Amino acid sequence: MIILPSPFHAVPVFPRGFRCASRNVGLKPSARDLTLFASDVDAAAAAVFTRNHFPGAPIVLGRETIRGGVLRAIVANSKVSNVATGIEGIANARRMALAAATELGTDSNRVLVSSTGVIGVPLPIEKIERGVVGMRDELQGDPMVGAEGIMTTDTHPKAMSASLGAATITWVAKGSGMIEPNMATMLSYIFTDAAIDAHTLDRLLRAAVAPSFNSLSVDTDTSTSDTCVILANGRAGPVNEADFFALLRDGCIRMTEVLARDGEGATRLIRVHVSGALNDHEAHVVAKSIVNSPLIKTMVHGADPNVGRLLMAIGKCFDCTITPLTTSASINGFPVVQHGERLRFDDATVRDTLARDVVDLDVTLGVGNGSARVYGCDLTKGYVDENAAYYSS
Amino acid sequence: MIILPSPFHAVPVFPRGFRCASRNVGLKPSARDLTLFASDVDAAAAAVFTRNHFPGAPIVLGRETIRGGVLRAIVANSKVSNVATGIEGIANARRMALAAATELGTDSNRVLVSSTGVIGVPLPIEKIERGVVGMRDELQGDPMVGAEGIMTTDTHPKAMSASLGAATITWVAKGSGMIEPNMATMLSYIFTDAAIDAHTLDRLLRAAVAPSFNSLSVDTDTSTSDTCVILANGRAGPVNEADFFALLRDGCIRMTEVLARDGEGATRLIRVHVSGALNDHEAHVVAKSIVNSPLIKTMVHGADPNVGRLLMAIGKCFDCTITPLTTSASINGFPVVQHGERLRFDDATVRDTLARDVVDLDVTLGVGNGSARVYGCDLTKGYVDENAAYYSS
Repeated sequence: MIILPSPFHAVPVFPRGFRCASRNVGLKPSARDLTLFASDVDAAAAAVFTRNHFPGAPIVLGRETIRGGVLRAIVANSKVSNVATGIEGIANARRMALAAATELGTDSNRVLVSSTGVIGVPLPIEKIERGVVGMRDELQGDPMVGAEGIMTTDTHPKAMSASLGAATITWVAKGSGMIEPNMATMLSYIFTDAAIDAHTLDRLLRAAVAPSFNSLSVDTDTSTSDTCVILANGRAGPVNEADFFALLRDGCIRMTEVLARDGEGATRLIRVHVSGALNDHEAHVVAKSIVNSPLIKTMVHGADPNVGRLLMAIGKCFDCTITPLTTSASINGFPVVQHGERLRFDDATVRDTLARDVVDLDVTLGVGNGSARVYGCDLTKGYVDENAAYYSS
Repeated sequence: MIILPSPFHAVPVFPRGFRCASRNVGLKPSARDLTLFASDVDAAAAAVFTRNHFPGAPIVLGRETIRGGVLRAIVANSKVSNVATGIEGIANARRMALAAATELGTDSNRVLVSSTGVIGVPLPIEKIERGVVGMRDELQGDPMVGAEGIMTTDTHPKAMSASLGAATITWVAKGSGMIEPNMATMLSYIFTDAAIDAHTLDRLLRAAVAPSFNSLSVDTDTSTSDTCVILANGRAGPVNEADFFALLRDGCIRMTEVLARDGEGATRLIRVHVSGALNDHEAHVVAKSIVNSPLIKTMVHGADPNVGRLLMAIGKCFDCTITPLTTSASINGFPVVQHGERLRFDDATVRDTLARDVVDLDVTLGVGNGSARVYGCDLTKGYVDENAAYYSS
């Protein structure tokens, strides 16, 4: 498991004034499938969404909702994503916001809607409208209850929190497959009682998402539902902006590692660091090429010391500046490539290091000062099993 | 299996004046691992090679060799690819060319060298030098013997031939994983007795490779050894250039389908056709996004009618012109998406069509006249098995 260093809490808690509830309302056979996150008071809010050209109905509505910069609640269902469902899908997303707003006694333009699950299936809106009634009375303080409600193929609920003086930041997320976010991860909710205005929140969120969720790839597939939203209810008063940003970013990176480690079928976290590239953009392209290569992912899965594949994955970045003589690479600090050639090493040593729970692949290109860090996981038979029957099962 | 229509022969033969031989020389435990293809006379020749930044030593040497425009032979070994092996690797590739040239009584600058297998391991050149002696006497007329000698993870040898008047074209290829060629496929040799000069051959080969091998992707990984070469020994006299090109291109496309169908672990051939794109380039980008999506590949593998994933894969082409309202899609001719929405259909029908041996995914974007066709295969547990232990096994 990934050990969270301080300032992260051993057991996640909510910031002051945030609570959640989740229930089974009949979308899934018995697991929790409807979730509410609520703030006692209006919270400043910012969000980023998927760049996919076929955004789900909740994304279309969410872009409108977040313009106000204020949220009281998030309502989310799992099992059906309400994507590619046309005008009826948008109407259903609005009905879902209204149902949650009515239950909480607020306006529907202060409720962000999320749906996650199968694409192209109508949302069972009546079940959700009936199911949300009474959830206000179930609101409670454990973020894990909400994290559990938004799971799809995740193997465990994902929530964490950290302190910043009197303030707290809490992250709740889900996401396991169809993960190469390009604005945010599948669903990632961040709550804080720090007092920060919506405009600042938006700027800080975008800056924090770039080196974290936007540097994550489980399977190169960008979801139609990716949403990352932050709510700040101000209950803990003002905080130092630089300190707040540093913690926000670090927490997003930690959550990114947690999501990668729980990628569909995954058994290992892969972290790729590329330095010495011509610029940061080329470093990112090379790092993504490595972390997305099925041959690298299976090499790590099998702990097979076939490290020549690193050169293949670097070398196929046709448009980047790559010079074999200046290229070197290491695995968990152990050098395996120098001057573009595979070093002669003891296979057993590399096999052992590839078998670790976290595999760090470090590449130096030696042509400039650009660098990038990205996150992924191994490719296993479990991924094939899950995705060959996701709709049918 | 894929049925080859006329003019392809039921059993592949060589053009006049071409022969081959293959042997086990101790690189593999017992399978054939060294192969010679020879022309009785000098042949005009052209070749294209990988664009990977870490080309193997045989590629570096091959670029030099092909400049002469004349070849008498190809010598190829499997098991070790002689990539990322530095100066010593180049010297070994030269020694391999010289050994084959000496055996055949020609110059080493008329012998193209290929090596395929693990990256970064020294080539056992002495075994090859000893092993090639006497192979001249074993040269014979069945192209399958050569096709078998160059196999790595291929499940069957790949050769085919076709007639064009008095002339014949013969294709011999291998390639199963690390396949998203970007000049040519892994190893693809084309032989003809038509009389065509090297300059024309080069032009025709490049034009034929674009819609065939360069439109193939098994796993998004571009090999460091990709080579496609054509030899024309002129023994059948001149041919009509347009007819020759049409047959050359069609044969390359057929061979591309054969390679895709035998992708590592693959059980099905996937053909993606995108039309109505803004231009051909955008059509190609969208088609590649679909054929490379792990979620599409596993959907086909499981015959799971989760067709919303088609929209996800189209929609993640951020830089292409995509308008949901004009987007439609079908599977083997059965409509599944219209106006960017999933149609309501009988799941069993789609399940049945996805279970076919060949799955045609047709997408119309409705924004222009660009089109593209690409080839790939499903993603299975077999791919993971093979590549998690390729080096070690």
